[in-house]
Amino acid sequence: MVENNKIQAYLPAGASEIENDLGTAPGIFYEGNKKIIAAFPGVPSEMKQMFDKLIMPRLEKISGGDFLVVRKVRCIGAGESAIAEMIGNMMARDRNPLINCTVDCGVITLHIIARAKDKHTAETMAAKDIEKLRGILGRLVYGFDEQTLAKVVGQKLLERKKTLATAESCTGGLIAKMITDVPGSSKYFTYGWVTYSNESKMSELGVKEELIERFGAVSGEVAQAMAAGAREKSGADFAIAVTGIAGPDGGSGKKPVGLVYISIVSPDGIKTEEFLFGHRNRDFIRLRTSQNALNLLRLNLGD
Amino acid sequence: MVENNKIQAYLPAGASEIENDLGTAPGIFYEGNKKIIAAFPGVPSEMKQMFDKLIMPRLEKISGGDFLVVRKVRCIGAGESAIAEMIGNMMARDRNPLINCTVDCGVITLHIIARAKDKHTAETMAAKDIEKLRGILGRLVYGFDEQTLAKVVGQKLLERKKTLATAESCTGGLIAKMITDVPGSSKYFTYGWVTYSNESKMSELGVKEELIERFGAVSGEVAQAMAAGAREKSGADFAIAVTGIAGPDGGSGKKPVGLVYISIVSPDGIKTEEFLFGHRNRDFIRLRTSQNALNLLRLNLGD
Repeated sequence: MVENNKIQAYLPAGASEIENDLGTAPGIFYEGNKKIIAAFPGVPSEMKQMFDKLIMPRLEKISGGDFLVVRKVRCIGAGESAIAEMIGNMMARDRNPLINCTVDCGVITLHIIARAKDKHTAETMAAKDIEKLRGILGRLVYGFDEQTLAKVVGQKLLERKKTLATAESCTGGLIAKMITDVPGSSKYFTYGWVTYSNESKMSELGVKEELIERFGAVSGEVAQAMAAGAREKSGADFAIAVTGIAGPDGGSGKKPVGLVYISIVSPDGIKTEEFLFGHRNRDFIRLRTSQNALNLLRLNLGD
Repeated sequence: MVENNKIQAYLPAGASEIENDLGTAPGIFYEGNKKIIAAFPGVPSEMKQMFDKLIMPRLEKISGGDFLVVRKVRCIGAGESAIAEMIGNMMARDRNPLINCTVDCGVITLHIIARAKDKHTAETMAAKDIEKLRGILGRLVYGFDEQTLAKVVGQKLLERKKTLATAESCTGGLIAKMITDVPGSSKYFTYGWVTYSNESKMSELGVKEELIERFGAVSGEVAQAMAAGAREKSGADFAIAVTGIAGPDGGSGKKPVGLVYISIVSPDGIKTEEFLFGHRNRDFIRLRTSQNALNLLRLNLGD
């Protein structure tokens, strides 16, 4: 039906419309008998925005009793079970705050769920737990809540007024993509190379041919030369370089799929590490390589 | 319990184990009363592999009656409603094959669901519909089933024995990442640049300073110069270049957030197009830019 020049959808009796700022399909909201029924359009970006804007506040209002605060502690550098062991009985199932753990491609996220009669008390309880966890986990903790490694690294570069360049082989641009996912990254990220062929490693980053011949393109020596070349050519303060075998082909007995070298060059020198992400698929190897490269840079940037 | 040096999990009575090749947690399989109950570990990569390997074949066996074949036709270059209008009554809800439509960041996927008494008949019905759709949609169809734009472009480059280089500003490595997501892409992808700063556009790709001063870094002229520079420096047959404003900051009245220029240089010359992905977020603008760049290259590569 048309009303005030606006086309309206039909709604079930007793229900009201949830406005959709990003599309034309409205949502449906019904409240009765202390229950909410809400229906949204299927496009995730529209649904999420509508949920946050209209449903969350109403849920908070009708929940009445306890207040829940959820905070997240993001870790990288140790496995789920190692971290669980370090935390010990803080993860007991009947504890308040309750601490849950999820894992996504090398990043361990601890969810601290604090329940109290008011918001301030719940927030204080969660904050105390976060301090405890920081004390226990130290530098394994890279950030909080929705922080990504790229955001944390970017923030550190901004604070120190430093710049960054990248030279990627097996990750094929993924590290640069993750860095530039962050708004404002042009303030510290200047140059990136995807040197996928041996020729490009030589012509763009000045890697010497004999180095590739002697050690192979996938070697700590070549990673180091790529990082040094990227820093020199860009004039950046820091450079990340990676070379490895993302698979599924290209592996050998000596250099299997999942073998990766990451090199970080900083004003203090060069650090190169070897990783072996064996028996996993191409996407996994590329993502883990990128996460580890950003994490090595984070550790290099200090606290 | 331990049996033959293997630790086994306890299983519900009457259930059997689903082996997990990628992790330690087994799945649980129960079949009775013409129903299957299956439980998997929560890690998606483990779950999917177990489902494909053990559950799909069993489902096919017990389904007995009709056979379903699902094929996909992937389109880019027109909106969902325009495509639906072109297809017309092929999308009728009571038709067999049934044709559904999903949209993901500019890619329209038509799902052709054919139902018949045997697999061959269902496959033939789906294949006939695919031919009809190709006739109607023409070059809007870029591929089938699980093909991505990057896979299709890679296949064309391989067949024509051509190489590709990329020069990215606002997409920050995403195009190179999408190209190198494809195994074997090192056969045709050689050089990539992420020239995020004006200096890097000049020093790495030979973009002239007066061009940036006169037209701005976000302009068709600079996109064109980046593409030409990337092709010349890499010696590749084709080069893609993009420059734009991914936001949320950096927009102006004349050059708003979402303004993007894409340039494709080929042995036949240079083509540059302007896009405006207004009022959307950074991730959306970057992804749509990358998809459109790959699509322009596809159209340039011919059938």
